[in-house]
Amino acid sequence: MLNGKLHLFFHSELDNPARWQAALTEQLGELQFSTVDHCTRPDTVDIALLWTAPANGLADFSALKAVLSLGAGINQLDLSSLPHPVPIARLVDHSLTQTMVEYARAAVFRYHRALHRFEQHSRQRLWQFEAPLLAQQRCIGVLGLGELGSAIAQALAKDGFNLQGFSRNPKILPPITCHSGEQGLYRLAGEVDMLINVLPLTAETEGILNRSLFNAFNKAVFLINMGRGAHLIEEDLLDALDSGQIEAATLDVTPIEPLPDESLLWNHPKVLITPHVAGLSSPQQAAVNLAENIRRTMAGKPLLNQVDLTRSY
Amino acid sequence: MLNGKLHLFFHSELDNPARWQAALTEQLGELQFSTVDHCTRPDTVDIALLWTAPANGLADFSALKAVLSLGAGINQLDLSSLPHPVPIARLVDHSLTQTMVEYARAAVFRYHRALHRFEQHSRQRLWQFEAPLLAQQRCIGVLGLGELGSAIAQALAKDGFNLQGFSRNPKILPPITCHSGEQGLYRLAGEVDMLINVLPLTAETEGILNRSLFNAFNKAVFLINMGRGAHLIEEDLLDALDSGQIEAATLDVTPIEPLPDESLLWNHPKVLITPHVAGLSSPQQAAVNLAENIRRTMAGKPLLNQVDLTRSY
Repeated sequence: MLNGKLHLFFHSELDNPARWQAALTEQLGELQFSTVDHCTRPDTVDIALLWTAPANGLADFSALKAVLSLGAGINQLDLSSLPHPVPIARLVDHSLTQTMVEYARAAVFRYHRALHRFEQHSRQRLWQFEAPLLAQQRCIGVLGLGELGSAIAQALAKDGFNLQGFSRNPKILPPITCHSGEQGLYRLAGEVDMLINVLPLTAETEGILNRSLFNAFNKAVFLINMGRGAHLIEEDLLDALDSGQIEAATLDVTPIEPLPDESLLWNHPKVLITPHVAGLSSPQQAAVNLAENIRRTMAGKPLLNQVDLTRSY
Repeated sequence: MLNGKLHLFFHSELDNPARWQAALTEQLGELQFSTVDHCTRPDTVDIALLWTAPANGLADFSALKAVLSLGAGINQLDLSSLPHPVPIARLVDHSLTQTMVEYARAAVFRYHRALHRFEQHSRQRLWQFEAPLLAQQRCIGVLGLGELGSAIAQALAKDGFNLQGFSRNPKILPPITCHSGEQGLYRLAGEVDMLINVLPLTAETEGILNRSLFNAFNKAVFLINMGRGAHLIEEDLLDALDSGQIEAATLDVTPIEPLPDESLLWNHPKVLITPHVAGLSSPQQAAVNLAENIRRTMAGKPLLNQVDLTRSY
């Protein structure tokens, strides 16, 4: 607290702090809001709202009571410099979920109706008819069945596609056929026409989109990575595109962002790069959920969507 | 009738007659099925199933009782050579409706999530973030609210978009804001971010996608033509793309198909051409509805989806 007012510290390279300050003030009333540029009293910060940790870490935040991630996950967030253990929560935000669902629909329907091929044909003055398939003739696999993955899978099932899903722990989400465990992952891979990744990035899931998974495909699969760049082994993807195991890929995330100029993914005829735009929180929407966790922190109550650090999601 | 069996004549350059024969036989039992290649007794044909009329016309079909179009409209069908007036029906087919809805979703979501721009950026090694809009921040207009147009508008409304529709006669289709008449058309044009055309082609609607309509836009609009090529004045589109009145266009139909090599639409950076693939009937699905109209014809009952020739749809 600073002068008896709630003191929030905000850090994100991706967002405009003023918009978040306005949205949070609307939810919580008058408050102290600081960023690295003007935080003279880190020892009075109650709660840190972070996309990433500030470069100098958080060791001086001696009164810190909670860390609220501005992302759906926390793997982007280095928490090694905390002054003491505090509860940490992910951001569950319906505008984020909706943007992810809409991105998945855009990427899926583009492949479903071969617009990726017609884009190239339009450049080549090529009129080449191909009969469309119906949604029920496609099987889509979704890796990750948390908040985002299950919303994406349910939305695509409503659109008429056959859906299979994979998660760490067994789930029941009709009409989605759910798999878990390594065997389940490979079983799913053998069934799908399209594969969407929205797993959290953990030690277990890093590099999960690799050669051995692609070897389990039974047809040329469309790959859509909406998780994190480190889920994908880039070299294995390039080989699988060459061999035809993967028909085409949409990558919203890359190991280094922005994707470096020299990457072989740029200008690959079968790869669409989007600049990490799949999911975005609007401050107005997100502030509602953040405010609830801020009130819970100050009242000493358990947080919503608290992260279990033994699983890192 | 030929030897007491129902005699169907089939004509389409786009389809494989054998698949339709099999699907219709499954619905109706044993029948006589002929095409131009082996129709020795046109005088015994009961019913003609036509995408277009055969080159030699239908004057010899002296026992003809009905014409069943294989399309959702009949403007592709020259009926000037009928031996006598017969009832004519359009094909209403759920697989056709579904393919049209899925095409509309593909074209709309591609623009909604700026994939048309990211496709170009991927070729240019350009990582340029832009914040996505949510569906409820977009207004989509649908021209034509018949079987296909209303299905498209309802599907996009379920996806969260704001929908406005235009039809010849006033309609009530909540949650779609419906317009009719010339004033209604221009009112709709002033509201929309995207415009989808699925009007039937008639003397009234020919050239409806023209300069004066584009002048009524209040912002740079995405145009999606799923109707007929003759709905669009190509020169006016090219001017509107240059001036920025139209942001980009997806054309599934063109005045001449295939689109000629020399067309300025090919390889235009803001135009996606698809080779008339938006809607397609599957013989299995379509045969159910065709069989019902065939039974009605033979029983002397009125047809379903009969065309009013004074309106030509």
